[in-house]
Amino acid sequence: MKNIPVIMIIFGGSGDLAHRKLYPSLFNLYEQGLIHDNFAVIGTARRPWSHEYLREQVSDAIHETHDQVDENEVKAFASHFYYQSHDVTNVEHYVTLKKLAQELDDRYSAQGNRLFYMAMAPRFFGTIATHINDQHLTGSGFNRIVVEKPFGHDLASAEQLNKEITASFDENDIFRIDHYLGKEMIQNIMPMRFTNPLIKNIWSGEYIKNIQITLAERLGVEARGGYYDTSGALRDMVQNHIFQIITLLAMPEPKDLSSDSVHQAKQELLKSLIIPTPEEVKKNFVRGQYLGSDTTFAYKKEPNVDPDSTTETYVAGKTKFTSGPIAGVPIYFRTGKEFKEKKTRIDIVLKHINNPYGQAHSNNITIEVDPESKIYITINGKKIDEPGIRREDLTYVFSKEEMTKVPDGYERLLHDVFVNDSTNFTHWSELKRYWEFIDAVEDAWQKENEAGNPEIAQYLPYRMGPKEADNIFESPTEHWIYE
Amino acid sequence: MKNIPVIMIIFGGSGDLAHRKLYPSLFNLYEQGLIHDNFAVIGTARRPWSHEYLREQVSDAIHETHDQVDENEVKAFASHFYYQSHDVTNVEHYVTLKKLAQELDDRYSAQGNRLFYMAMAPRFFGTIATHINDQHLTGSGFNRIVVEKPFGHDLASAEQLNKEITASFDENDIFRIDHYLGKEMIQNIMPMRFTNPLIKNIWSGEYIKNIQITLAERLGVEARGGYYDTSGALRDMVQNHIFQIITLLAMPEPKDLSSDSVHQAKQELLKSLIIPTPEEVKKNFVRGQYLGSDTTFAYKKEPNVDPDSTTETYVAGKTKFTSGPIAGVPIYFRTGKEFKEKKTRIDIVLKHINNPYGQAHSNNITIEVDPESKIYITINGKKIDEPGIRREDLTYVFSKEEMTKVPDGYERLLHDVFVNDSTNFTHWSELKRYWEFIDAVEDAWQKENEAGNPEIAQYLPYRMGPKEADNIFESPTEHWIYE
Repeated sequence: MKNIPVIMIIFGGSGDLAHRKLYPSLFNLYEQGLIHDNFAVIGTARRPWSHEYLREQVSDAIHETHDQVDENEVKAFASHFYYQSHDVTNVEHYVTLKKLAQELDDRYSAQGNRLFYMAMAPRFFGTIATHINDQHLTGSGFNRIVVEKPFGHDLASAEQLNKEITASFDENDIFRIDHYLGKEMIQNIMPMRFTNPLIKNIWSGEYIKNIQITLAERLGVEARGGYYDTSGALRDMVQNHIFQIITLLAMPEPKDLSSDSVHQAKQELLKSLIIPTPEEVKKNFVRGQYLGSDTTFAYKKEPNVDPDSTTETYVAGKTKFTSGPIAGVPIYFRTGKEFKEKKTRIDIVLKHINNPYGQAHSNNITIEVDPESKIYITINGKKIDEPGIRREDLTYVFSKEEMTKVPDGYERLLHDVFVNDSTNFTHWSELKRYWEFIDAVEDAWQKENEAGNPEIAQYLPYRMGPKEADNIFESPTEHWIYE
Repeated sequence: MKNIPVIMIIFGGSGDLAHRKLYPSLFNLYEQGLIHDNFAVIGTARRPWSHEYLREQVSDAIHETHDQVDENEVKAFASHFYYQSHDVTNVEHYVTLKKLAQELDDRYSAQGNRLFYMAMAPRFFGTIATHINDQHLTGSGFNRIVVEKPFGHDLASAEQLNKEITASFDENDIFRIDHYLGKEMIQNIMPMRFTNPLIKNIWSGEYIKNIQITLAERLGVEARGGYYDTSGALRDMVQNHIFQIITLLAMPEPKDLSSDSVHQAKQELLKSLIIPTPEEVKKNFVRGQYLGSDTTFAYKKEPNVDPDSTTETYVAGKTKFTSGPIAGVPIYFRTGKEFKEKKTRIDIVLKHINNPYGQAHSNNITIEVDPESKIYITINGKKIDEPGIRREDLTYVFSKEEMTKVPDGYERLLHDVFVNDSTNFTHWSELKRYWEFIDAVEDAWQKENEAGNPEIAQYLPYRMGPKEADNIFESPTEHWIYE
């Protein structure tokens, strides 16, 4: 890896994401020699911090996430950090910021390279992008921007934000980040699909009965009720994480591993994404809200949540493609808060075949993404002490030792930004397509709400979500594999 | 399971097999209620034992193989045993034996059912069969005979023995026993192949590059040098165990699980077994003998072994079928004494596919039969901290708890004899075909011996056999997976 000169500007430099993820990840890259001399980071936020205070914060962030560090290295790393108090709505502040960036560019020989990172509340993204443009904050070298999710609230707002960003940045320089794409087992999907004849060979509607994706959260909305009530599970989880996973599972094989080829394969697939009609939404989607318990609030009683809220804390749905290797295969997904446990997993359910043994279990390929990194294939074997067939799970679980080698998603993705690899970021045309799907569902729900008969399943907390989700399957022989 | 009335006559009642396997297995069946009242066992051998002494032996055999037993049950079980001193070449003795069998038949209401078990040195099988016939030892009910391996020494002697046995027994009543067919993982081959679309689907020459079977023994010939020197690895292991495994792997799917249908599928396959020419034997087979070490004898120096012996303690070879699901797929096998460890395993090696990741490992399906019961599938996944592909073994290992449930092969197969299920026994037409193959190899070797240039690889003990076995592969991309 080579030293890449750059001035990085983090909007939201005093925030939680910067502290928990960005500073530790940058330090790891620094330790690996990716960035060592010609870089500086400007943290900006409203608070009146000093450079020194930011450096202390950076140092704390590293200590909090690392068991052992070389203090001299931490100190050297932190010395590259600068703080600029900044109100993102105040145009004057961009002038100051620009001046600091130029000074640091000279001091660090950063060759006019700029990396902007939007790590603030999403409502500010457009404003920041606009002022980067009108105050000409971009440098004379490369100019890249990393945008956190959510990218817009619906298609219209996403288009507006995209317009504001593309005023200063080319599509190739916009890194729409989704940390799920940095996860080990998500990055394992393509290699697994394309390098294993055993798997590649059954990757079609001839063999696959359905695919199931579960993103289960254990937590409720916690302190985020106010924001969450304007979003909901569909926007918060399906629009990004779940659709990224679906795309990786359903895309055709790219002709090579270049970012262009991978995105081309994804875009080819997404053209054939079936956008549901309101009738299909009614039939194939379930939205839900968690109920309370002795010790926890029902969603509608959470602080800052509208007591008549129709916002879903759970959604289950179905989608399909008309092209690609698994054209026509139903893909079921569900996500929600207050499941019995935190779990992200993908189940590939194979069709049954006639066999002389009669009843058999379905062959399933399961990829567990969280909390463990695990792959298992369920096959049939003989029962030991009586006639008949039993399930045997052939398993590969990442060992503790292996897990320590797995970099945090942010570290991986920041590295990708530095080396200008946008494979694991969302292209605009993909994002647009996801929003088209989400809007169709949201619009149908909105109409149900307005008609006064929204069907919102109430579900018991810390179980498996609403039982209504068992009814979205196409055939009575299908059911949730993870239960 | 029901009570099956029978008088069982064991030739070799004082022998090792009876003591270690037959008596404990019969006891287990008795405990499970398969045989409880209407049965008696006559042990015969040359030694002048009493009924009571045999019963003590039976009781000892049970205690040696069981952690905990009900003493009353052992006593009740042993009371069904009778001893008859017997010289198998003495015709008069068959008259005595017949009389005892008839008495016991009356006493135990055994309904004229007889089960003969040949658990002696194979050279006596023909004599016993002949006298069973000429002295009319068969009863008025069912008459079954269990014949231990080896069934003959070559095709001619096997045909002669078969003629002698079929004088008194129908083919359907002859149970040619191969305890490998009673092993858990061997019995798992058919269910695995036919109930799993994931496996069934790749079971063809399109996907399978080769199949490899290894039956590795840790021990040398020990005290059996005299007998072994007349047999060798090909006759001792390939003719029976390895060919049974090959047949299970290559046979077409039977139309149902009846014994007739299974044997029909096997016989259909075996018609297309390619019998090697002498040139093919030279090219595709390796025979070897183990060398000595500081603490062990070389084969040629073992007690009772001819110092100029050409008998192989190791053989590797190749075979193929022209029909069946894996027509044309090379099946490599090897077996021998003084390997580095005792191991029986089957490796199904899949062909490579082009993929955008370049180099990848082959997908393998491995069935370990001994010492562990284990299935694993080797797939490719991403390397964790650098680009590229690594091996991941998805594994199912039988737990200790499961292993305690696995009955001994003899118990299973004896049970099959009682309930008249010959699925897991060798039909004459199969055995004949195996001998045709073995004879072709033995004849080619014999000619090489006679020409004075036998190629017998000498191999170091307690390793992986002779390196010459690496040269039998059809292509340079093939190699032994287990090494």
